[in-house]
Amino acid sequence: MTLLPIIENIGLMAFAMSGIIEARRKRFDLVGVYAVALCTAFGGGTLRDLLLDRKPILWVNDPVYALAIFGLAVGAIFLPAFARLRERYLQLPDAIGLGLFSITGTGYALEGGISLFVAILMGVITGTFGGVLRDIICNELPSIFRRTELYATCSFLGSLVYAVLLKTDFNSGIAAGSGVAVVIVARLIAIRYSIKLPDRAGE
Amino acid sequence: MTLLPIIENIGLMAFAMSGIIEARRKRFDLVGVYAVALCTAFGGGTLRDLLLDRKPILWVNDPVYALAIFGLAVGAIFLPAFARLRERYLQLPDAIGLGLFSITGTGYALEGGISLFVAILMGVITGTFGGVLRDIICNELPSIFRRTELYATCSFLGSLVYAVLLKTDFNSGIAAGSGVAVVIVARLIAIRYSIKLPDRAGE
Amino acid sequence: MTLLPIIENIGLMAFAMSGIIEARRKRFDLVGVYAVALCTAFGGGTLRDLLLDRKPILWVNDPVYALAIFGLAVGAIFLPAFARLRERYLQLPDAIGLGLFSITGTGYALEGGISLFVAILMGVITGTFGGVLRDIICNELPSIFRRTELYATCSFLGSLVYAVLLKTDFNSGIAAGSGVAVVIVARLIAIRYSIKLPDRAGE
Repeated sequence: MTLLPIIENIGLMAFAMSGIIEARRKRFDLVGVYAVALCTAFGGGTLRDLLLDRKPILWVNDPVYALAIFGLAVGAIFLPAFARLRERYLQLPDAIGLGLFSITGTGYALEGGISLFVAILMGVITGTFGGVLRDIICNELPSIFRRTELYATCSFLGSLVYAVLLKTDFNSGIAAGSGVAVVIVARLIAIRYSIKLPDRAGE
Repeated sequence: MTLLPIIENIGLMAFAMSGIIEARRKRFDLVGVYAVALCTAFGGGTLRDLLLDRKPILWVNDPVYALAIFGLAVGAIFLPAFARLRERYLQLPDAIGLGLFSITGTGYALEGGISLFVAILMGVITGTFGGVLRDIICNELPSIFRRTELYATCSFLGSLVYAVLLKTDFNSGIAAGSGVAVVIVARLIAIRYSIKLPDRAGE
Repeated sequence: MTLLPIIENIGLMAFAMSGIIEARRKRFDLVGVYAVALCTAFGGGTLRDLLLDRKPILWVNDPVYALAIFGLAVGAIFLPAFARLRERYLQLPDAIGLGLFSITGTGYALEGGISLFVAILMGVITGTFGGVLRDIICNELPSIFRRTELYATCSFLGSLVYAVLLKTDFNSGIAAGSGVAVVIVARLIAIRYSIKLPDRAGE
């Protein structure tokens, strides 16, 4: 399980960047950009830790995370290159982040003795809540709740594959790798073919 | 006190349904409908448990709740009958949910040694925070803060009756039943006669 | 460190009042005014305590806080004088509250063994999150994220001064006093000269 903390770091920066892009669009200043970046990157993991009563919370305990994202936020305000950043450049890193976060969230929940279905939900919460928080702070309807291209669904599918492989005695590295791969591939396919969930039936 | 966990279950479904109706109105997809239903049903109890440091959190520990609400959300998307659901059909079940949640919240707080006034507040938070969270996610001003027909006030009155009866050595079943009844009757009277709280004086 | 709980109380009322003014502007009723006042006053400290795993939470444990703010909210609804309250009358008490909350937040974090940078962040969270929560509930973009006059930045500077003085063995009273003074003076200067942070570069 020592894999889990390591892969978590890679996803954080992609998530922070999606927060920064949204905060810049709202013309937030440095404080706002930093706050939204922190919330997007750490919101999911923090909610998961509060719900599972895991402590200490990663970014509270180790300053390197908050400092790294502060560096990103400063760069986003002062470097002209950031003004040209568009969300679609983030699609692959964001999919990787979603995959990594989903699987670590599910993994921590299973370690804590949580049942399969709720552990998968914890994976989805870890992967998606930061983005929901970003949208709430930016006063938008959460994009993942309104016919996005299968965002939370990819997280659910990958977490399910991971949890089932782990319960059937696969090596934890293979299970985690498969889960992450399922999330990333499903998300990229969904974007490519604009696959969405149904919303309202019968109307 | 073994009554408390049992009556909690009945209210959950009414609350989940009010989340589903609001999420459908915003044209959320299955993921959004499920997330809003979960937040509406469990938001109040989860916040109460975090504030009181009670653990484990009910729905995290037992998958039956999250699975039941998932079933509701799937039904809400795929069954045409759900499209005809209107909020007023939910007025009675919602009042029952409000009553049950308020009294369990107050009860758990008193069990934890919390003072009378804050214990009543915990009842109100348990009964109403899910709906506030639903409105925030759906990007609306929380309906219970703007001259609704005495929603939180009913919760406060019932919690007060319950707490006072309990402190004056009434049987806990009688105290709980009286508290729940006060919430339900007060709410239905307030709806029937459009009784609202004052907002601004002096203007 | 016994200074910390005492100075916390003074700031609470100024923060509650800023919540009340905003809630009245949205025409919230008594329940809404009280809820927003509570969230504005206690939101920052409560989030800090959840993140640091400090317990019990101040206002949950001692009813005097929730009762005092209830009194304020009732006054705000029924006394015509409140209708004439304007935010600018609150600038000084709010700056004092910001200073006190920032320094107590940083102090509690350092007591808990948190690193310097994150402890300063905890000071900023304690000082500012209540206001962010107020704006989210009132369905506004958080004002401190959009080129306010250095609100969170003042909190950051004062917390930094406090933490550095404390680490360099100054008397804790002198360190706290200096930190609070830096926040208040920086905030009043920023308001007076409309000093703001940059938002977007390169455009």
